[in-house]
Amino acid sequence: MIKPVEWAADGIIMLDQRLLPAEERYLKLRSYEEVADAIRQMVVRGAPAIGIAAAMGIALGLKQSIGTSVADLEEDFEYICETMSRTRPTAVNLFWAIERMRAAFQKAKSETSDVEEIKQRLIAEARAIHEEDLAANRAIGRFGAELIPDGATVLTHCNAGALATGGDYGTALGVVRGARDAGKRVAVIADETRPFLQGARLTAWELAKDGIPVTLITDNMAGHVMKQGKVSAVVVGADRIAANGDTANKIGTYMVAVLAKEHNIPFYVAAPISTIDLSIPSGDQIPIEERDPSEVTQLRDQRIAPEGIDVYNPAFDVTPNELITAIITDKGVARPPYTQSLRALVQGA
Amino acid sequence: MIKPVEWAADGIIMLDQRLLPAEERYLKLRSYEEVADAIRQMVVRGAPAIGIAAAMGIALGLKQSIGTSVADLEEDFEYICETMSRTRPTAVNLFWAIERMRAAFQKAKSETSDVEEIKQRLIAEARAIHEEDLAANRAIGRFGAELIPDGATVLTHCNAGALATGGDYGTALGVVRGARDAGKRVAVIADETRPFLQGARLTAWELAKDGIPVTLITDNMAGHVMKQGKVSAVVVGADRIAANGDTANKIGTYMVAVLAKEHNIPFYVAAPISTIDLSIPSGDQIPIEERDPSEVTQLRDQRIAPEGIDVYNPAFDVTPNELITAIITDKGVARPPYTQSLRALVQGA
Repeated sequence: MIKPVEWAADGIIMLDQRLLPAEERYLKLRSYEEVADAIRQMVVRGAPAIGIAAAMGIALGLKQSIGTSVADLEEDFEYICETMSRTRPTAVNLFWAIERMRAAFQKAKSETSDVEEIKQRLIAEARAIHEEDLAANRAIGRFGAELIPDGATVLTHCNAGALATGGDYGTALGVVRGARDAGKRVAVIADETRPFLQGARLTAWELAKDGIPVTLITDNMAGHVMKQGKVSAVVVGADRIAANGDTANKIGTYMVAVLAKEHNIPFYVAAPISTIDLSIPSGDQIPIEERDPSEVTQLRDQRIAPEGIDVYNPAFDVTPNELITAIITDKGVARPPYTQSLRALVQGA
Repeated sequence: MIKPVEWAADGIIMLDQRLLPAEERYLKLRSYEEVADAIRQMVVRGAPAIGIAAAMGIALGLKQSIGTSVADLEEDFEYICETMSRTRPTAVNLFWAIERMRAAFQKAKSETSDVEEIKQRLIAEARAIHEEDLAANRAIGRFGAELIPDGATVLTHCNAGALATGGDYGTALGVVRGARDAGKRVAVIADETRPFLQGARLTAWELAKDGIPVTLITDNMAGHVMKQGKVSAVVVGADRIAANGDTANKIGTYMVAVLAKEHNIPFYVAAPISTIDLSIPSGDQIPIEERDPSEVTQLRDQRIAPEGIDVYNPAFDVTPNELITAIITDKGVARPPYTQSLRALVQGA
């Protein structure tokens, strides 16, 4: 099983996704600052995985707190949560995980004044978030499998697989794995997903490891393969889903959704309930991270564009709800109108 | 002035576009075989530039023929033309240039039996093709400028600039330069254009050199920037235009055209008359070159995808005529229905 992030007695073990597929190297992060840096630098990425890593980072930071009173501990805890919340702005799972750790802290504090006991409870909460994510992805896979016909070719963008989550199934790739595990033949077309190449480096890698047939294309080939009738369905992950179903996901997702509509191909978003943010009415309110221009102009040490030009590097875009056929969650499949269906799923959860 | 290909007394001088923007290195190609290899390996690329390079390669090969009779010369000539015609399949300018050299050979043969005289005439023909291309691009620039409003931001895909033609203006970038030279303010958004990165490496380079503001994006950002209202018009080049206006161009062009339609942005194709192929009724008959998977899985010496996966690497796609607002040629601007308007332009030419 692919394990992008794991709790260990003396730190957090993280697969360095920047080095894949050339090298499968695991880092041991020994402080919450190192975890925050790893999130920022995309050692770990993918909305659910970021949430898990942040929760573990908070638990690790708290464990290392030298506070002897609950008040001291809480001050450290809040400072650590603040640090984590400033790592990346778009994926709501990060904030969801922080809020869940906050609630766990408050509950623990209300039940005990034993500093060690509180620390242990927060570690347990982070590990529970991880375990629940694995179960959620299995559920997404079961619900999603019903939407994928036998013999389907699924186009996906970026990586919403084991590497983007707690491991194992993933979200969008969880739907693919769910279909396979339901006995269906399924193949994947993976957009390479510039600039970070999550499709080429990560999706292709984990599917090949898993024996699922995968064909790599550059992002600009998506329209051409759809026009040729090679795509049965599109399945992508999500970094944040607004109350009306508008979905922020990796830059390029919007383009794929427009192309899917043009070719009458179903376009599915697969994400756990924790990715739904009912506090914002539409995608207009989702903050879109812009990252360093060097991600576009350089590939590792190689410069691939001239000096002295402008570069625009938004890491995400928003796909409007009307382009989304269905949203596959661990609690069931939401269909339009999403304002109703998403609320029902979240409240039922 | 940027000169991608130049005739010289002892060979053909070619800017090695594979090395840009890191290095501006000029190769001297001393045989027609070297020229054919350079076209195949994309030392030179872009439909008009390929045509010019092929014509020069044929002239060079003929010059080096040791044939002493016209019959011997013609046998060598046909062999050289055959070699050139097998370099790349999609750009019709290649076949157009070869046919033009053939016609020049036939005309020369009918007028003289002096082998040296025939060689000189074919050299002159190749150089004329080059000169006419420069003039054609200036005309494209004048016609196109009228379609570009003052203050426009033009999105372009791949490189249809000086580097894709005989030099100087280019076709799609000729429209941008024409607008600038008509006193309009104009900026460019350049798709990086994977896998060969013509946008990042070539378009950004030549526009920066020319002082035209350019913002580089990855291909998958095109939809997002259009949705934000940042794009006034799309202008691209062409490798082959069928009688009905269907246009083969660099892979990803079709996707950009679908996105432009979705956002009500005019989508223009800029190309010389020699790119129009009235012999084929629609884009379905245009052969689409597939290139080596390593273009997608490697960037120079760096591998960016795992082993053991499938890769699809079509170098071109076809944009259907209904997505094209107008086709800007050196003989005027064609509007739908293209079957009529293109024929009129070609026959008037």
